[in-house]
Amino acid sequence: MNAENNIQTINIGILGFGTVGQGTWKHLEENDKFWAKILGVELIPQRASVRSIEKARNVKISDSALTTDSLSIVDDPEIDLICELIGGIEEAKILTLHAFEKGKSVVTANKALICEHGDELFEAAEKAGVQYGFEASVAGGIPIIKVLRESMVANEFPLIYGILNGTSNYILTRMEREGVSFEDVLTDARELGYVEADEALDLDGVDAAHKAVILAYLAHGIWVNLEDITVEGIRRISTEDLQAARKLGCKIKLIGVIRRNFENNHISVGVYPALVPMDEIIARTDGVYNGISLTGSVVGTVVLTGRGAGQDPTAGSVISDIVDLVKAKKGISGAVKLRHVTPNECKPAKAVEIQGSFYLRLTVEDRPGQLAKVADCLAEHEVSLATVSQRPKSKSATSTVILTTHDTNEHSMNMAIQSLETLQGVIEKPVLFRVFDPNAVSKG
Amino acid sequence: MNAENNIQTINIGILGFGTVGQGTWKHLEENDKFWAKILGVELIPQRASVRSIEKARNVKISDSALTTDSLSIVDDPEIDLICELIGGIEEAKILTLHAFEKGKSVVTANKALICEHGDELFEAAEKAGVQYGFEASVAGGIPIIKVLRESMVANEFPLIYGILNGTSNYILTRMEREGVSFEDVLTDARELGYVEADEALDLDGVDAAHKAVILAYLAHGIWVNLEDITVEGIRRISTEDLQAARKLGCKIKLIGVIRRNFENNHISVGVYPALVPMDEIIARTDGVYNGISLTGSVVGTVVLTGRGAGQDPTAGSVISDIVDLVKAKKGISGAVKLRHVTPNECKPAKAVEIQGSFYLRLTVEDRPGQLAKVADCLAEHEVSLATVSQRPKSKSATSTVILTTHDTNEHSMNMAIQSLETLQGVIEKPVLFRVFDPNAVSKG
Repeated sequence: MNAENNIQTINIGILGFGTVGQGTWKHLEENDKFWAKILGVELIPQRASVRSIEKARNVKISDSALTTDSLSIVDDPEIDLICELIGGIEEAKILTLHAFEKGKSVVTANKALICEHGDELFEAAEKAGVQYGFEASVAGGIPIIKVLRESMVANEFPLIYGILNGTSNYILTRMEREGVSFEDVLTDARELGYVEADEALDLDGVDAAHKAVILAYLAHGIWVNLEDITVEGIRRISTEDLQAARKLGCKIKLIGVIRRNFENNHISVGVYPALVPMDEIIARTDGVYNGISLTGSVVGTVVLTGRGAGQDPTAGSVISDIVDLVKAKKGISGAVKLRHVTPNECKPAKAVEIQGSFYLRLTVEDRPGQLAKVADCLAEHEVSLATVSQRPKSKSATSTVILTTHDTNEHSMNMAIQSLETLQGVIEKPVLFRVFDPNAVSKG
Repeated sequence: MNAENNIQTINIGILGFGTVGQGTWKHLEENDKFWAKILGVELIPQRASVRSIEKARNVKISDSALTTDSLSIVDDPEIDLICELIGGIEEAKILTLHAFEKGKSVVTANKALICEHGDELFEAAEKAGVQYGFEASVAGGIPIIKVLRESMVANEFPLIYGILNGTSNYILTRMEREGVSFEDVLTDARELGYVEADEALDLDGVDAAHKAVILAYLAHGIWVNLEDITVEGIRRISTEDLQAARKLGCKIKLIGVIRRNFENNHISVGVYPALVPMDEIIARTDGVYNGISLTGSVVGTVVLTGRGAGQDPTAGSVISDIVDLVKAKKGISGAVKLRHVTPNECKPAKAVEIQGSFYLRLTVEDRPGQLAKVADCLAEHEVSLATVSQRPKSKSATSTVILTTHDTNEHSMNMAIQSLETLQGVIEKPVLFRVFDPNAVSKG
């Protein structure tokens, strides 16, 4: 059924079936029931264009859904919405403009295209009355574009800066941590498939510059020419520099910086390695992570970090754009459903089902065997100790004992604490804190 | 003109004219031309309800715009949209439901109200066909609700955790940094006006628990009862604990934690002090800042930090909700304007206008007077030195010199580098990085 009238399904055509294209297909299919619930519309990934139909893929897709002819997908009257994920500039531009002419909205992750031709494309989309979503083009899974345009709508932005390229950040992080040379880490990064075929994009700051240009436009309404701004890469950074920076309380990061001076109304946009003070979140955003610090005139500084690339994070952003576009089409946008529409059959965990480790501070009588008594008491409730330190309190016959436990459950710990409270030689009510393990994502 | 037909203005009534109410009024008025541009609609703060009309205020507002009767604003046919910023539960609930009945959308920062009566209020808003915006209710200026519901729409959330109360985080940060006791810092915090009148909200984790309950609902569709979850505060944390935690590579933070175990379909929600590993951004989110880490099934971990309270950040979130609601009303939501609508009269800064300091690595001949020559060369271009270190390179007659400069401008630095490149005794092309000063927000 066509998307324009009495929408029941939105058929999605994906141009380019690489990493992000396949990720988008996969997550659209896996969550098909969810889209119907939140949108009242089914999102159907229907066709995809590829370079070679025969190539083996990780995503299940029938050969009949594949074509080598991207244009045929754009022209297909059954296809309502286009995801342009082929990358590159010329062909992507032609296909995008053609989709707009056909009245089809487009979602893209193509930063180079928007950086070069954003002005023309945005105008064409508005003229055609269609939508153009590009959340995935900057910082992969970090929802920077939505935050900048919608959440921080009441702000002007004197400063936006951050790490916009994960590959170069990965290289710098490993150089810094392991003292390994640029060339050696680069070899590894190539083997891991982290480096773009055109290495200048990652190593010479070009990819980050594309993104900085887009952010500068969104924040300030001015398209800066890539040729007019400082764009430096990471090739000249040595491990010695990284060490020297550390002594200065900084890390060297490849950052994109967009400054607006409201007094003289200047804007400066650049991408370059810089020493960033260690107390900045951006300085401690390591590995393949990206991080962006937005300083808004109203809200102050908001920092977002997350995966800047990769199949799933980028596909997640593509899909959030698809959902927004469909909402806009249906006129239900903004009217986010307040009440939850996923089955809420989950239930609060019982204490015995919540795993975790604990920090425990006790004040005890300072006498032989007291610590053993405490440990025995814990062991009775199957709480075992990870670390122990004991220190006598000055001017008293008591000691402070600080313990951490191995993984246990809340019920056992509660029972152990109750026993400790009545244990001979334990003077005050024990102080108990949880040790938070962010890697244990679903201990509840 | 009424908001329902041929909208030209949206008249806004603000219930409660405390910190956030006044901030909202101020920013709406200051940016009046901007709203017309992005929305095609004027946003007019028209009336506000107060406890006492006579009280001195920092915001310019005519007495005739003020009333002590909140209900009269809700009932006023001239008022199109309500901001409920009075706080508390019973009166706020009555006013909100009454606004819904009148067909008026409501924006609120009232976490206690939503935590207690969200289910009923959401149902009433949907039944009345109006919008209910509450971005400002969780983490002030951090756009957590929009990110969770819109940007991360393709995700399930095994773990959401973070610092949701700025006052308690301020107290813990000062205790940790200065070794000052809880009571002493609390006295300061009270004097600074950081602590709510009902101190249990900040100190016993109740405020953070309200927010955790809202996030749990948004992520998992289940309203957890405040009474059924672990809610602990910070009163029992000693400076000794903070030191012990540091030795364990952690900081003690008051965190809200929402875990979902998809295997047994359990959810656990709690607010408690916990040792958080120092390499987590949340552990290093200090002072009045809030931070939230969202782990999504598709996007991985995204962390947002920013000011969790205060007039401007919270007002900024209130206004972003107002803009979203107006867009939804006009059916232009989602259809974010692609092209920039603010005047883009700003222009790229010239190099001489860009201030900053630099890091410089030189390889020089290892002979007396060489460093002085370098310093002279820099001084000629008015670049002065902040730090200098020189180290001979082994097995060569050369040294590595690492310098940092005081503030200069890019033009001077470029000229200085050109001179250095031809300076006698300077062997390789100098390596130059910028020293990034995040506090200099508009150096461009």
